[in-house]
Amino acid sequence: MEFRINKKDFLKGLAMVQTIVERRSTIPILSNTLIQAAEEGITLTATDLETAIKGWFPASVSLEGQASVSARKLFEIVRELHESEIHLQKKENNWVTLISEKSVFNIAGINPEEFPPLPKFKEEDFRPFPTGQFTEMIERTVFAASTEESRYNLNGVFFKGIEVDGQPTLRMVATDGHRLSLIDKTGVEFSSLEKGIILPKKGLLEIKKLIGDGAQKEGEKEEVIHLSLSESNFVAKKEGVIVVTRLIEGEFPDYESVIPKENDKTVRLSRERFISCLKRVSTMASDKGEGVVFEFRKGSMALSSSSQDFGDAKEEIEVDYSGEDLVAGFNARYLLDALAVMGAEEVLFELKDNTTAGILKPVGQEEHLCLVMPMKL
Amino acid sequence: MEFRINKKDFLKGLAMVQTIVERRSTIPILSNTLIQAAEEGITLTATDLETAIKGWFPASVSLEGQASVSARKLFEIVRELHESEIHLQKKENNWVTLISEKSVFNIAGINPEEFPPLPKFKEEDFRPFPTGQFTEMIERTVFAASTEESRYNLNGVFFKGIEVDGQPTLRMVATDGHRLSLIDKTGVEFSSLEKGIILPKKGLLEIKKLIGDGAQKEGEKEEVIHLSLSESNFVAKKEGVIVVTRLIEGEFPDYESVIPKENDKTVRLSRERFISCLKRVSTMASDKGEGVVFEFRKGSMALSSSSQDFGDAKEEIEVDYSGEDLVAGFNARYLLDALAVMGAEEVLFELKDNTTAGILKPVGQEEHLCLVMPMKL
Repeated sequence: MEFRINKKDFLKGLAMVQTIVERRSTIPILSNTLIQAAEEGITLTATDLETAIKGWFPASVSLEGQASVSARKLFEIVRELHESEIHLQKKENNWVTLISEKSVFNIAGINPEEFPPLPKFKEEDFRPFPTGQFTEMIERTVFAASTEESRYNLNGVFFKGIEVDGQPTLRMVATDGHRLSLIDKTGVEFSSLEKGIILPKKGLLEIKKLIGDGAQKEGEKEEVIHLSLSESNFVAKKEGVIVVTRLIEGEFPDYESVIPKENDKTVRLSRERFISCLKRVSTMASDKGEGVVFEFRKGSMALSSSSQDFGDAKEEIEVDYSGEDLVAGFNARYLLDALAVMGAEEVLFELKDNTTAGILKPVGQEEHLCLVMPMKL
Repeated sequence: MEFRINKKDFLKGLAMVQTIVERRSTIPILSNTLIQAAEEGITLTATDLETAIKGWFPASVSLEGQASVSARKLFEIVRELHESEIHLQKKENNWVTLISEKSVFNIAGINPEEFPPLPKFKEEDFRPFPTGQFTEMIERTVFAASTEESRYNLNGVFFKGIEVDGQPTLRMVATDGHRLSLIDKTGVEFSSLEKGIILPKKGLLEIKKLIGDGAQKEGEKEEVIHLSLSESNFVAKKEGVIVVTRLIEGEFPDYESVIPKENDKTVRLSRERFISCLKRVSTMASDKGEGVVFEFRKGSMALSSSSQDFGDAKEEIEVDYSGEDLVAGFNARYLLDALAVMGAEEVLFELKDNTTAGILKPVGQEEHLCLVMPMKL
């Protein structure tokens, strides 16, 4: 293997693989990136056996072949080089020599044959999907996924193809058992999702990164990402880079039965105002529970909190509440997380009693709901 | 105590005390800020018993008095308030009630009489000092101070009044035993510094913060900071805020005998180039030692490093070296730290042999030198 590449392209590729490689892997090759040189360019690959990324970058290849070296170390080196051509050549012992101007680096390598192969997928299985919608759906759900390793079936977002009013609809749901976020996108067809799949958080965040800030500008054609689903993998492809994510095995819980249907007490208020009030009142909530007490009375909602060490806080907001008096406790952090991803100016907060989950919905975007379990007072 | 204050002023004061208060103090009142209301404003004070800060802020005081509450909690609350008037009132049990618009906070307090008094100092003892010079001297020395608690006499910067060519001169020196930085400023008189004092790092950084980015602009009058020294405290004052720092007790080591006088081998090179070469080559140095090998030959300086796990690196720079061949090892991090604070475009690197400290000097600013001990190869 021997090629010349400019610093900018190489650094871009090496930056791309940094979040995938395992920092302290017990399997040394998982800390490495696989470099494959062929024809007009090179590919860089990294995997943690759950999520893999592979990208193509232009290079002047004089000898095809492959090598595998520490992704972090190569990144650190290339970052410090001048903006000029970098020459890479594989040596006999799997080491790689990197030369740039007057710097010479000999970088320890591992036999690239040991690099775990990516799952196979077929070009024809890919389907285009508008990037804006996909990013939005991920953003509005992924925060609610669990980070507890023992609850592996909640460590991701559940994708399911459903029908709403006879229209094909893609649903995403995430929950950690204390809160849940669900969003539907109607008119979006995605085959083989009848049973549903669970996509891990890390892979989804990589796909989100792959999409980038490619928000659609007026008059521009909407960007697309190409997606494909095999038996155990989800693959996303955009501009020469693919992200492969292994699906989480296991059953996603019966989330539908958790969503209360009889929350008949509703408050409608400004999202910004709700956020700012919650932030103020929760300063006095204890660090762990972040419990805030809500008192609903005709025309008003009062939030309060207290901590043994620091004191108490209370704030009242005038709202259009007309139900019975109700006192219920909620975790401020969970409410704030949900409000943060809502796109609307106003939200609905729907309640039943102090043992039923509260539901937040962005006004005008009823395809999205967040549920927060109540806290004991 | 009762007063009204606008959010901006209050938040500025509370931000100021945050770095002083102890997060996990065993003495609860040290986590608090002392609020004293009198006449046209309030003062906020915080101390960790080594460094104290006290600042005055305008307020509309309706009842003079004082209170003490958690500095962090008060900051968190005020940060979340709207830009409007804040009303503070002390209650019987040392608690404080804070009201802003529709928010009411009752904040736990401690009897302000328990707050440690600041040392006394006299207004007439303060002497003006140009802020630019003072900041520069701190920046160029403080990085070399030790952070090891057991070496308390090295945990700061040594200030000493000396004479250079018959002129009064202020000298600052810091060392951690492995490297040292020394800077002299001639024409600067500072009384009672004949014996020298050691000022702790934290206090100096607070004084630097107090000075702010007040770099002198062309045509502007240079800003000054007022400084005063008592038996055991150093006090800095600027625009209504004072920082009081307790001097470190103990002897500063005999640094003069450590500075080699016979480094007859000299290399002169671009500071930027030296920094960028060191960064590249040190990528292959082991994380802890960061040892880089220097090989000096007629007309060239070669830097190299190697790590068992990752490989090796080498880079040669053409320099005006004309001494004997010399091979010596240095810690790249120490050299980089020293080069980072030097103001000149070019630096001198002065050596003798592989057991003598190397000396870095900014060309044209010979009042500043940094010394780095050699590493065994």
